[in-house]
Amino acid sequence: MPSSPDVKDPSNPKNLPRVVVIGAGFGGLSVARGLNLAPAFVTVIDKTNHNLFQPLLYQVATAALAPSDIAVPVRGLFTDMPRVGTLMGEVEGVDTERKVVRVKGTPEIPYDYLVMATGSVYSWFGHDEWAEHAHVLKTLDQALALRSSLLAAFEWAESRTDPNEIRKLLTFVVVGGGPTGVEMAGAIAELAHSTLARDFRRIQPTWARIVLCEGGPSLLAGFPQHLSDYARRHLEDLGVEVKTGCQVEAVDRDGVVAGGERILSANVLWAAGTAATPVADWLGAEKGKGNAVRIDEHCAVIGHPDVYAVGDCTYMEDGRGRRLPGVAPVAKQQGEHVAKVLMRRLIGEPLPAPFAYDDQGQMAMVGRSAAIADLGKIKMTGVIGWLLWSIVHLFFLIGARNRITVYLNWVWAWLTYGRGARLITSIRPQTREEFGYLDSVADHRQALRVE
Amino acid sequence: MPSSPDVKDPSNPKNLPRVVVIGAGFGGLSVARGLNLAPAFVTVIDKTNHNLFQPLLYQVATAALAPSDIAVPVRGLFTDMPRVGTLMGEVEGVDTERKVVRVKGTPEIPYDYLVMATGSVYSWFGHDEWAEHAHVLKTLDQALALRSSLLAAFEWAESRTDPNEIRKLLTFVVVGGGPTGVEMAGAIAELAHSTLARDFRRIQPTWARIVLCEGGPSLLAGFPQHLSDYARRHLEDLGVEVKTGCQVEAVDRDGVVAGGERILSANVLWAAGTAATPVADWLGAEKGKGNAVRIDEHCAVIGHPDVYAVGDCTYMEDGRGRRLPGVAPVAKQQGEHVAKVLMRRLIGEPLPAPFAYDDQGQMAMVGRSAAIADLGKIKMTGVIGWLLWSIVHLFFLIGARNRITVYLNWVWAWLTYGRGARLITSIRPQTREEFGYLDSVADHRQALRVE
Repeated sequence: MPSSPDVKDPSNPKNLPRVVVIGAGFGGLSVARGLNLAPAFVTVIDKTNHNLFQPLLYQVATAALAPSDIAVPVRGLFTDMPRVGTLMGEVEGVDTERKVVRVKGTPEIPYDYLVMATGSVYSWFGHDEWAEHAHVLKTLDQALALRSSLLAAFEWAESRTDPNEIRKLLTFVVVGGGPTGVEMAGAIAELAHSTLARDFRRIQPTWARIVLCEGGPSLLAGFPQHLSDYARRHLEDLGVEVKTGCQVEAVDRDGVVAGGERILSANVLWAAGTAATPVADWLGAEKGKGNAVRIDEHCAVIGHPDVYAVGDCTYMEDGRGRRLPGVAPVAKQQGEHVAKVLMRRLIGEPLPAPFAYDDQGQMAMVGRSAAIADLGKIKMTGVIGWLLWSIVHLFFLIGARNRITVYLNWVWAWLTYGRGARLITSIRPQTREEFGYLDSVADHRQALRVE
Repeated sequence: MPSSPDVKDPSNPKNLPRVVVIGAGFGGLSVARGLNLAPAFVTVIDKTNHNLFQPLLYQVATAALAPSDIAVPVRGLFTDMPRVGTLMGEVEGVDTERKVVRVKGTPEIPYDYLVMATGSVYSWFGHDEWAEHAHVLKTLDQALALRSSLLAAFEWAESRTDPNEIRKLLTFVVVGGGPTGVEMAGAIAELAHSTLARDFRRIQPTWARIVLCEGGPSLLAGFPQHLSDYARRHLEDLGVEVKTGCQVEAVDRDGVVAGGERILSANVLWAAGTAATPVADWLGAEKGKGNAVRIDEHCAVIGHPDVYAVGDCTYMEDGRGRRLPGVAPVAKQQGEHVAKVLMRRLIGEPLPAPFAYDDQGQMAMVGRSAAIADLGKIKMTGVIGWLLWSIVHLFFLIGARNRITVYLNWVWAWLTYGRGARLITSIRPQTREEFGYLDSVADHRQALRVE
């Protein structure tokens, strides 16, 4: 070790143009990867040290997969790309005049080109106070807290004697009938009805009540009606109470009021709506619907020619005036496009053709051996849909190691009905002492250290 | 679902004699398993819902394995044993007069026979205030906090400019030269010097300083001198500063004072000493050295013929008046013996021969392709020792699934020098905002939600 480490920035010795990418999700990563050979130094900034494969996050929350199966360190993705650097830190602001990004605790980071890929946050439809009483599912920490909370509900129910207490602990409410809500409701039902069925001596895990509330007329809006109907039937077969056209009127420490019914529950999952991160406010730029930042046909932020934005935080319309959905393929393709645009600008060539979204279709998992897929002309359900879903998700996972472990975990779970990660962690000892057990999501969140 | 769940205890309908086992470690589990066919109803109580394979916990802390690779739900181990029940809860006390165990939040649990298998805690040699400033390694939560703290130190160092700050962040102090200390020091050195070496752009992970402080004259007391010397040489080759005869005089927010030297460090790991859990105090029973509860030749607590104790919380001497060590095989064999004794008592047969410890030897991992093993007449080092170490640990892991995933992770890591679980989780957002980064273990512990 040198006695005085040389901390002058040796990473960009040739003083190449600087591209800063904020966010290491699907969008941010595809920008950085696409600039691998560009004459630029790229810095990827993220609050966490890992890229998370969100489509499988619900499987971490339901104990089927381990966090490290679906997350990889961002830094490790750029090992062989010496002109891409990584910074773990919290962005505090962007100064578009001076062209710098302010990150908590570090010197300002200057940029020549900036890419915002900061994604979305949960939206509470004007009821921010509900956030305290419901789980959400965006980060690994949230998934682990939800996992602990679900498993602890069964453990605590096993040791109680008051039927009302037991019923509250074994009632699970999922708000929102999009892909996340459907996947979670199906996975909780399977966890309760088969995986845990043999392991308890007093309670019957089949006592578990799983309620899925959707405000719209059918589940999985955006899918063709017959696929949505299939999903509903399959969930009902699994024992899920599906309520469509069901407005949630309150979320509090006793559970929810939904469609006029008070449902006592110690586990409420909010999967009802997302909103763009406020990129437009940070930059002082133009907004589209849902506060998302407006971008032009090359994903440049309107009025800020050196600032680009991709993915869930943006507002862009397709040829027919419909907003592009907040899904991974959009973010990924926009990221690839921005990389191409920046490459051309860096080497002084004309810009490529405008961005056009190539829609490959959509899929959702409904339960063991059952998924739906809408690939334009081809629609699939059941085992075939499930096989396709599995293959596609394995393919898009990052890293050979993760592909292998996820594949093996799935095969194992399929053969044994087991779930390999049934661990309750992160419960604060003193909270456990205070409460004995926890009877509301607010208690859980406090005990499980979720913010 | 029945409209009113019947919560009367259906688990013990024949009113069989009740055996209560407190603690689901090696000792507790071997008691419960040994009573599988006994005419008794067994209840295993643990604070957590999982059994933890502690010998590999350091690999979770250094990002080589995932928590679910080395932990299994206790409940799942007894799926096919209908007369064994599991209870997750915090034991508050034992009333040996009325023969009941008090568990927070549940009705009292009556027993006919009680087995204490509560293990050990860290001992701070009279300096309990040091606990705030050092990591320890007993639970999954502690291992995950240590992992986040180690990885975050490199991340934060990468974004700093003050050489003193960087040096403090990259200095790692391990206190205690037993197996855990040696394994951790070796693993941190490998993490810094090879796994992370290629991923940073500003800092050189080789700037990392790893100090191992041992108060005694050599590492791994209890192993033959030449094996201990081998371990020391190997650690030094990995870049670890090994300090023997080195007394720690202070542990505070700046690091440690050890052997007269002030070592600034943001990561101190305490692996220096353990003490029995205070079983003797709980029961009002006789104590041996180190506060451990005295047990007779059948592991019964002296003066309490229906209460047994096994493992780290007990004091028992071998034929030559030496205390049995606090290691897994002792706990396991004592547990098996207690199961045998209880079985005989339950069916009214004479007791077996007194307990005798069958010492199979000991092993310690020093680093990649290097371990030491002392099997009585046979001693091993290097690759041979490492292969034996790996096989033995795979063999003792619980569950085929975990054996397969750990094996694959090891092969993968060996081939690629990679570590699959380099994830920083559980950092509280508001703490991150407050601190920007955290420069002492106390900050880390606060931010990482460790108690």
